[in-house]
Amino acid sequence: MALARVYMDWNATAPLSDAARVAMLHALTIPGNASSVHSEGRAARALTEKARRQVAALVGADPVHLVFTSGATEAASHVLTPNFRMGRSLLTIGRLYVSAIEHPAVREGGRFPAEQVTEVPVTRAGVIDLQALESVLAAHDQASGIAMVALMLVNNETGIVQPVAEAARVVHQHGGILVVDAVQAAGRMQIDIAALDADFIILSSHKIGGPKGVGALVGRGEALMPSPLVRGGGQEKGHRSGTENVHGIIGFGAAAEFALEALVQHRAQVSGLRDELEAGLLEAASDVIIHGRDVERVGNTCFFTLPGLKSETGQIAFDLEGIALSAGSACSSGKVGRSHVLTAMGLDPEMGGLRISMGPATSRQDVAAVVSAFKKISDRRRPAGEAA
Amino acid sequence: MALARVYMDWNATAPLSDAARVAMLHALTIPGNASSVHSEGRAARALTEKARRQVAALVGADPVHLVFTSGATEAASHVLTPNFRMGRSLLTIGRLYVSAIEHPAVREGGRFPAEQVTEVPVTRAGVIDLQALESVLAAHDQASGIAMVALMLVNNETGIVQPVAEAARVVHQHGGILVVDAVQAAGRMQIDIAALDADFIILSSHKIGGPKGVGALVGRGEALMPSPLVRGGGQEKGHRSGTENVHGIIGFGAAAEFALEALVQHRAQVSGLRDELEAGLLEAASDVIIHGRDVERVGNTCFFTLPGLKSETGQIAFDLEGIALSAGSACSSGKVGRSHVLTAMGLDPEMGGLRISMGPATSRQDVAAVVSAFKKISDRRRPAGEAA
Repeated sequence: MALARVYMDWNATAPLSDAARVAMLHALTIPGNASSVHSEGRAARALTEKARRQVAALVGADPVHLVFTSGATEAASHVLTPNFRMGRSLLTIGRLYVSAIEHPAVREGGRFPAEQVTEVPVTRAGVIDLQALESVLAAHDQASGIAMVALMLVNNETGIVQPVAEAARVVHQHGGILVVDAVQAAGRMQIDIAALDADFIILSSHKIGGPKGVGALVGRGEALMPSPLVRGGGQEKGHRSGTENVHGIIGFGAAAEFALEALVQHRAQVSGLRDELEAGLLEAASDVIIHGRDVERVGNTCFFTLPGLKSETGQIAFDLEGIALSAGSACSSGKVGRSHVLTAMGLDPEMGGLRISMGPATSRQDVAAVVSAFKKISDRRRPAGEAA
Repeated sequence: MALARVYMDWNATAPLSDAARVAMLHALTIPGNASSVHSEGRAARALTEKARRQVAALVGADPVHLVFTSGATEAASHVLTPNFRMGRSLLTIGRLYVSAIEHPAVREGGRFPAEQVTEVPVTRAGVIDLQALESVLAAHDQASGIAMVALMLVNNETGIVQPVAEAARVVHQHGGILVVDAVQAAGRMQIDIAALDADFIILSSHKIGGPKGVGALVGRGEALMPSPLVRGGGQEKGHRSGTENVHGIIGFGAAAEFALEALVQHRAQVSGLRDELEAGLLEAASDVIIHGRDVERVGNTCFFTLPGLKSETGQIAFDLEGIALSAGSACSSGKVGRSHVLTAMGLDPEMGGLRISMGPATSRQDVAAVVSAFKKISDRRRPAGEAA
C-alpha cells in the first residue's frame, strides 16, 4: 500500500493553489505573445496587466511600479547592484549591507562584488541588531555612493518577523535604500509597502501557491531604478527584457489574490495548527528546542532542534515516515548543510535544525501524523550521554 | 458572428503544443521543489532531468552541458559577458562581435558595455558577410582578451539561414568563442552543436510549442563557462540560481521532443504551405517583394514588403481580417518600428516588412485565408505614383 504523503514544506514551495491552476489552464490556451499588437497579443497583455494589479495589491503597491521577473532570485540579482538610475542620472550605490540571516539569493549580494557587501549581525533572538545597523550606516563612506540595506520581512527558516519599519527609519536617516525580501511574508502576514517604508520589495510566486519561475520586484516610484539585469527587447518598460511568461504571470496573479483571501480566512487556522504541533513536539520530547518562540513569527513555520538528531538524518527519517519537511532552506540543489541562520543566532553550528512549514491546505490529521512520526524518531535517539 | 482567427505569428510565439500541455498538466500536480531532498523534491528533479535530456537532444548536445534559464533573453545576457571562467581561472573576453541582424536580446550585448560591442555587416542577401567577419577578427586586439562572436542560426524576421559552420571556422582560427542563437532554428531545421562547431547555443521554449518563461544555454563542456548572471542558492550547478521552474522546464522538454518529431513529419508540409502562400501573394500583387527567396530559408517564414503599405497599417489591416501576423519581431512591448534587419540588408529603412510565420498546426485553409486577405488589402492600396 502506498503511504499517503504529508507535505509540510510550504516554505520551500507551496503546492499550486486551485486559483492559480484554474487561471493557468485558461492561460495555456492563449497563443499570444503579450508584446504582439494583434488581438492574440492584446488578449495576453490584458491578462498580464490584471495579474500585475493582483500582485501589487498583495503589498499595497501601485501596479505601475511592479516589474515581473523569473523569480525572487532574479529580482534580488536585479535590484542588488551598484548601478542605479535616478531619472536620467546615474546613481552609484557604494555598499550593500545584508542581515546575517538573509536568503542566499540576497546574501550573495547580486551584482555587488563580494568586497562591497557587509553583513549586519542578528541578536540571539533571531532579529536584526538595529544598533549594529545604526553603527555600520553611521560609519558608511558616503563618498563611495549611497548605502543599500537588504533585510527580509520574515526569515525563511525560523519564520521570525524582522523589524523592517524600524530598520527603514534608520536606513533613511542615513540616506540609504532599503530592499525587503518579502518572499516568506507574502500570504503569511499583511504587507504594506508604504507602512514598511521599503524602497523595494521582492516577491515570489511559488511560495504563495503560484507557479515556479515567476516573481516580482516592486518599487515606490519610477524614477529610482536599478540598471537592467536582463537586456534585450525592452519588455517591462525596459527594466526586464524577454518575452513575458504569460501563463506564469497569470498564475502568480491568481495566487496573490487567493493569498490575500487566505490571510483572512485561514491565518488563525494555520497558526492554531502550528501551536498544536509545537505542543505535540514538546510533549513527545521535552528537550526539543523550538526556535523563535519568544518573538513574533508568522503562523505557518516551526523550526526546531532535537538534541542528538542531525538534520540530514532527521529529514530522511521523516521522509521515510511519509512526511516532507526540510533541513533549513531548499536551495543549493539538495545540499543539506549547516544552517547559517542558527549560526547567526549564536547557536552551535553543529546543532541541526528541521523546518516544518504549513499552508491553508494543511489539516489537523497532517499535524497529528507529524507529531506521531516525531515521537517515533525521537524515541529512537541514543540515550543522552551515550557515546556517538 | 465571431470571426475565426488565423494565427500566423509562430516566430513571435508558437501556440502551446499538445505534448507540452499534457506534460505541464501532470507537472502542475507535483508539489515538490526540485532542490528538496524529500520524495516530492526528488520526483520533481527526475522530471526536470528528463527534460534536460529532451532539450539537449534537440541540438545533439550532452545534457550535462545544458543550463536552464528563464528564456533566451536571459541566456543571452548570461553568456554575453566579458567575464568567463576556464576551470578555476578567470578568462576575459575583450570584445563582442554581433551580426547586424541579431535579435535585440543579442544586439544589446548582454553584460558587455556598448563600447565593447562591434557590429558585423550582412550582405544584401541577408547573410553575415564572412569576409567582414574575417577582417574584424584579424584586427581584434588580443591583448584586451579573446574575441566573442554572436551569430544567429536563423534570422527571426526573414527566416534566412546563416552560415554558422563557416563562421565557426573563422572564429576559431582567431581563437574566439562562438555563441549561436538557435531560437528560430529549433524545430524548423536539424541542429547539431558539434557539426556547427558552436561553443554555446541559446534556445527558447515558447518558439517551439513549449511554455514561455523558459529557455536554455547549451555549451560544449564544463570548463568554459560565463560568470553567473543570477546568483543565490546555487541551482543548475551554480550557473543559474533560483528555484527551478519545474512545470516550465517539463513543458520545454516535451515540446523539444515533439519538435524533433515534427521536423520529420511536418517539415515538408509546412514549407509546402509556405511556397503555396508565396505563390498566392505574387499572383495577387506582382510587385510584392519576398525577402530571402534566393537564399536558404527555414520553411515556415515569409517576410515580405508590399510597396505602398506601411508595416503598422498592414498589421492592423490583417488583424481586422482575423489574421495574426507581425511587423518584424514582437519584442519591445508592442512597438512597431523600422526593421533593423531590412536596414542591415541595405534596403530602404522606410520600406515596411510583414512577417507570416507558420507551424505544424497551420492548415491549407489558413494559407488561403491569408492570401485572400492579402488580395483585399493589396487592392485597397493607392495606385502607384499617387501622392501620399
